[in-house]
Amino acid sequence: MADNKFSELHRAVYYEGDKSGRVTVAMLINMIILVSTDQSDSLGITEKDLTNLGFGWVITQYLIDISRIPHIDENLTLTTEAVSYNRFFCYRDFWVHDEAGNECAHIHAVFVLMDHKTRKMTRVLPEVIEPFGAEYTRRIERLEKPVGIMKEDTIAAKKSYDVRFFDIDPNQHVNNSKYFDWLLDSLSEDFLMSHDLKHMNIKYEKEIHYGHKIDSLVVIDNLTTHHQIKIGDDVYCEADCEWTKR
Amino acid sequence: MADNKFSELHRAVYYEGDKSGRVTVAMLINMIILVSTDQSDSLGITEKDLTNLGFGWVITQYLIDISRIPHIDENLTLTTEAVSYNRFFCYRDFWVHDEAGNECAHIHAVFVLMDHKTRKMTRVLPEVIEPFGAEYTRRIERLEKPVGIMKEDTIAAKKSYDVRFFDIDPNQHVNNSKYFDWLLDSLSEDFLMSHDLKHMNIKYEKEIHYGHKIDSLVVIDNLTTHHQIKIGDDVYCEADCEWTKR
Repeated sequence: MADNKFSELHRAVYYEGDKSGRVTVAMLINMIILVSTDQSDSLGITEKDLTNLGFGWVITQYLIDISRIPHIDENLTLTTEAVSYNRFFCYRDFWVHDEAGNECAHIHAVFVLMDHKTRKMTRVLPEVIEPFGAEYTRRIERLEKPVGIMKEDTIAAKKSYDVRFFDIDPNQHVNNSKYFDWLLDSLSEDFLMSHDLKHMNIKYEKEIHYGHKIDSLVVIDNLTTHHQIKIGDDVYCEADCEWTKR
Repeated sequence: MADNKFSELHRAVYYEGDKSGRVTVAMLINMIILVSTDQSDSLGITEKDLTNLGFGWVITQYLIDISRIPHIDENLTLTTEAVSYNRFFCYRDFWVHDEAGNECAHIHAVFVLMDHKTRKMTRVLPEVIEPFGAEYTRRIERLEKPVGIMKEDTIAAKKSYDVRFFDIDPNQHVNNSKYFDWLLDSLSEDFLMSHDLKHMNIKYEKEIHYGHKIDSLVVIDNLTTHHQIKIGDDVYCEADCEWTKR
């Protein structure tokens, strides 16, 4: 199989870090979307071209594995590869390596193509995915869904957030990474300063827009946390996280 | 007078832009603090060294002039110079230039040295500022204070924000740039999409901490907006903005 990986260097700067000097998960996600946008640009299939065709990529799920969260001021290598696609889904992998070549994070992502007019998922157009070297497959991956929150009475915390003007990015969506701030801010400072995120399964269910008021809910089960983003009774996003003691 | 300017290149990436694809003021401020931190590192007077001495730099005021706000994917040159200092204040200038060498923004900033133990302003130590080539002067700049909000009944909007875990940066403060998101998010999407910020005078009065709930208030007077960040009746930050129609 051909190697269709695309890589670039990225210096993690101080405003990509949290209080502990570690890169935030939100910024880690921003970085990997950056390398995939740069790959698109290098292949001449820009976000703008896609918009002009009436389409846009939407991420529906991330499976995030973190071996070691990088610190600010590290020089990282961001790598991506569009691995395969079927009628409706594209599967893309991302890797973040440190200067010594050690893997810091691996992220598996599921993308769908959205029709801007109907705002619904549409069939993947081979011409927008084949230049990446992705292989067509009839197989649909059966990825585990996050457990989310099963019983309301187990909720440890619930915080509300208004979606801000600056949460909307140049792609006209709530920036993907904002969800991570909402999800993880529901945990206490004590928890966030004493734990490292090792694994996260996050699934986006519905689009969130400017002006929405969302609730971020969390259930804490020892070293596992379960999360939901809701508006009223509707679930917009679910996630499970696995942590280790720092 | 010796040229003590320090410059570096910076690519504005998509997550540094707003819905319109323009770099946010928050990110512009992040970028200039980055270049000044890098200058400190290059001179061997790191933030960490200062912390070990029991001190930290705190910004008390910015005067921001924007000729043209850069777009994402522009390659910018960030420049800084510590110009002068007196017993209590350091004055630093910043410039952001585009690839053609045109000035996009000029920012004049006032810094003070804070004693971490007392959390009060302390006398500037010559040894932490002289390596930058800043000149000692007895003159204290009389910078205009923002007008802020004079009459409560003129307030056009008031929005509340909880300070989040991820608002605190590796320097253990609410990241400077967060204030800009709070201040400007009080304006409507219509206003923000149809106006360009030309000038901003912002003054930080008191430290904001994790867990605080702040109010962002705005008065709109045609192409001038006046802002305050308050907790209860106490003013934590004031700003005036001048805008042009886009």
